[in-house]
Amino acid sequence: MTLDAVLARIDDDLPQALDRLMELLRIPSISTDPAYKPDCARAADWLVADLQALGFDAASRPTPGHPMVVAHGGDGTGRHLLFYGHYDVQPVDPLTLWDRDPFDPQVETTAKGRVIRGRGSSDDKGQLMTFLEACRAWKAVHGTLPGKLTIFLEGEEESGSPSLIPFMKENAAELTADLALICDTGLFEDAVPAITTMLRGLCKTEFTLKAANRDLHSGMYGGLARNPIHVLTRILSGLHDDQGRVQVPGFYDDVAELPDSLRQQWQSLAFDHAKYLGDVGLSVPSGESDRTPLEMIWSRPTAEVNGIWGGYTGAGFKTVLPSEANAKVSFRLVSAQDPQKIIPAFRAWAESQLPDDCEIIWHDAVEGSPASVMEIGDPAFELARQALTDEWGRSAAFVGAGGSIPIAGYFKSILGMDAMLIGFGRDDDNIHSPNEKYDLECFHKGIRSWARVLARLA
Amino acid sequence: MTLDAVLARIDDDLPQALDRLMELLRIPSISTDPAYKPDCARAADWLVADLQALGFDAASRPTPGHPMVVAHGGDGTGRHLLFYGHYDVQPVDPLTLWDRDPFDPQVETTAKGRVIRGRGSSDDKGQLMTFLEACRAWKAVHGTLPGKLTIFLEGEEESGSPSLIPFMKENAAELTADLALICDTGLFEDAVPAITTMLRGLCKTEFTLKAANRDLHSGMYGGLARNPIHVLTRILSGLHDDQGRVQVPGFYDDVAELPDSLRQQWQSLAFDHAKYLGDVGLSVPSGESDRTPLEMIWSRPTAEVNGIWGGYTGAGFKTVLPSEANAKVSFRLVSAQDPQKIIPAFRAWAESQLPDDCEIIWHDAVEGSPASVMEIGDPAFELARQALTDEWGRSAAFVGAGGSIPIAGYFKSILGMDAMLIGFGRDDDNIHSPNEKYDLECFHKGIRSWARVLARLA
Repeated sequence: MTLDAVLARIDDDLPQALDRLMELLRIPSISTDPAYKPDCARAADWLVADLQALGFDAASRPTPGHPMVVAHGGDGTGRHLLFYGHYDVQPVDPLTLWDRDPFDPQVETTAKGRVIRGRGSSDDKGQLMTFLEACRAWKAVHGTLPGKLTIFLEGEEESGSPSLIPFMKENAAELTADLALICDTGLFEDAVPAITTMLRGLCKTEFTLKAANRDLHSGMYGGLARNPIHVLTRILSGLHDDQGRVQVPGFYDDVAELPDSLRQQWQSLAFDHAKYLGDVGLSVPSGESDRTPLEMIWSRPTAEVNGIWGGYTGAGFKTVLPSEANAKVSFRLVSAQDPQKIIPAFRAWAESQLPDDCEIIWHDAVEGSPASVMEIGDPAFELARQALTDEWGRSAAFVGAGGSIPIAGYFKSILGMDAMLIGFGRDDDNIHSPNEKYDLECFHKGIRSWARVLARLA
Repeated sequence: MTLDAVLARIDDDLPQALDRLMELLRIPSISTDPAYKPDCARAADWLVADLQALGFDAASRPTPGHPMVVAHGGDGTGRHLLFYGHYDVQPVDPLTLWDRDPFDPQVETTAKGRVIRGRGSSDDKGQLMTFLEACRAWKAVHGTLPGKLTIFLEGEEESGSPSLIPFMKENAAELTADLALICDTGLFEDAVPAITTMLRGLCKTEFTLKAANRDLHSGMYGGLARNPIHVLTRILSGLHDDQGRVQVPGFYDDVAELPDSLRQQWQSLAFDHAKYLGDVGLSVPSGESDRTPLEMIWSRPTAEVNGIWGGYTGAGFKTVLPSEANAKVSFRLVSAQDPQKIIPAFRAWAESQLPDDCEIIWHDAVEGSPASVMEIGDPAFELARQALTDEWGRSAAFVGAGGSIPIAGYFKSILGMDAMLIGFGRDDDNIHSPNEKYDLECFHKGIRSWARVLARLA
């Protein structure tokens, strides 16, 4: 069995695979912060070199933002697969909450097993390397890559992917394959392998609420002059009603109810929301009071204030009525919700509540992405489900995901290509948070999973 | 007339007086920020040297915080006067809104006249130097200081004066005089000289509202997990009702109504609130809807959020549900309101609104100060009013002030000494804001005013 030989090769090569991942994790490729632009380019170059070593025809392709890595390799008459991952990572603040330098990764032994600790270990460098390592083992055993492959690695996933759509449109012919594989999701509840078939969309807006033309002394003006922090808290406090429903008019117009079949399947998953919340120090679902916890995170839209600031926030006190206050607000979208309608609706709703002497300055909105719902009729989904079940010893599930992976939607809308989302992250990976980690088991079995999937699909 | 000689000397010496003030303004003595501690000490030393040059027995006296400057000089059997000012200044952020380096002061010619531009020019270095320059001219003409004088200059006024009460108590005998003069207030509406007889008190509190034990990915948790920014905006949005009344239970219990006599006097001042607000880009009073604008800033208490922050506030977006959100809140107090009751009442009110899974961490409160109401029966008040009327050509007024000058209350409660508040600031001085200035006219006539007041009182 050549698959067994590939799996054995993966097991033998794990220490070296880990060394390679550590090298990549040491590059602080934070895409949202312009200060790290050279590091993003460096991460792309590192991946190009590694892909070339695997025999790919690989290049770092410039964009107005961070480069795309595109590689072509293998041949054969079977399914042409495209693999997608992203090499950029989230910012690391607040740095004081990290137990180690986020960009000096290390394998740590914890009560629950060995983990790879560092920014990007799970989201998404560790995940994307599972696929590259599977290709490496395959090539070592077979002498060739597993079928015809295109690798497409992005460097702007954590900052709204501004270059992605233009790049895909300009290179549509080159990037189109029979099926896309995306590795940026997780297992279901730590042990059940999962193929994600529903993803929420995302749109965001940032604004400044202005009152006086300068900061005011709270003694000279307090009690008489408008305080924009008060106005901002008034508006944002009305974003949800007491039942957790978003109050922006029309927000739910394009939201479909979950089909009964899917509702029943999700109920059978017996999601342990008490544990899910307990892991982060919470106990009670705080969303829409008439929805199940899985609906809240997989199939219902949200409105969240991701950042707020105004007035004096440094050490000590400054008795000031500030001239302005600011907020960043984002929306997770489902079904047919259109980002091009949601952002204007939010803006109109906020502006309708402005009192005298106040105005809102809207900053450039990041282009939003709608939700994605996959066509699981393609037999590849069932083949992959079997491969995952073989590796993990648990029946793999079709699940939803609350996070946004806009690329899945773009593959469909721009390239006419279906996408299959398979990943090995765990809920306690602390992605987007301090002390991000990726379980060594997930890295190892993730590589083995891809070898099994490739054996069935390629 | 020796007073005429003193006034002439003041006029002749103005360029040199200005040079001396510029030297003092160049020292960035920001008391609330520990980074500027050496600069605060340097400002104190500069003043000690200047007072010694005037013949005072002056010293910089250490405290656990920034030093006090105490100086004694002159003699005579008349009234022993103590003069108070403060040499520390407010922070300068946001620095980008300054038209020049806040600590590289300069005289600028504006449409309304010549102004001294720089942090501390009005609050309070420029003001305190009016008194020192009056003493200098007096000494040049008379050869002696004007009667028996104590100078007492503080370096922590802008950061809650933590060392003030202990220092006054430890040095009570040395600091007690017949009457205190305080120069940290302003003219009434730009041209009417004023003696402030009512001052609002102040208390402050800062807190962190915590939910999850770490920042959460808004895709994985959004819609299910508690967002502490939402909770914070809900609580703070309820701080006032629609009529602008503070909703903390018991907040108004110790607030007296304004006596009719004072209400009538204030009405006769014909306060132009449209201009006062218009100068800062506002048009409408936004406080308690059943109060006059002068009441709002002079005789009514306030609750203001001076700072708010939580989540991601940097460049770009981070789709996070933060683990915590923060606020700084302060209260202007009137009548018999007790800071020791107001802060606990606010804390209890905020905590009573916390939903499940949230807690508030209260940070150390800065010691508050109650409001002050002066005894204007002392004939010194009428003598000073005459002196000010002589200099400015407009009948001087007894007024209120919305800002807190706790020292006035401490002089009474600790040293049993009345205080007379005379100052020459203008409402457009931008104190506590970018582009602070002090009108050259106010500096010049302020020095002349003190010479006239000293001639009558000493």
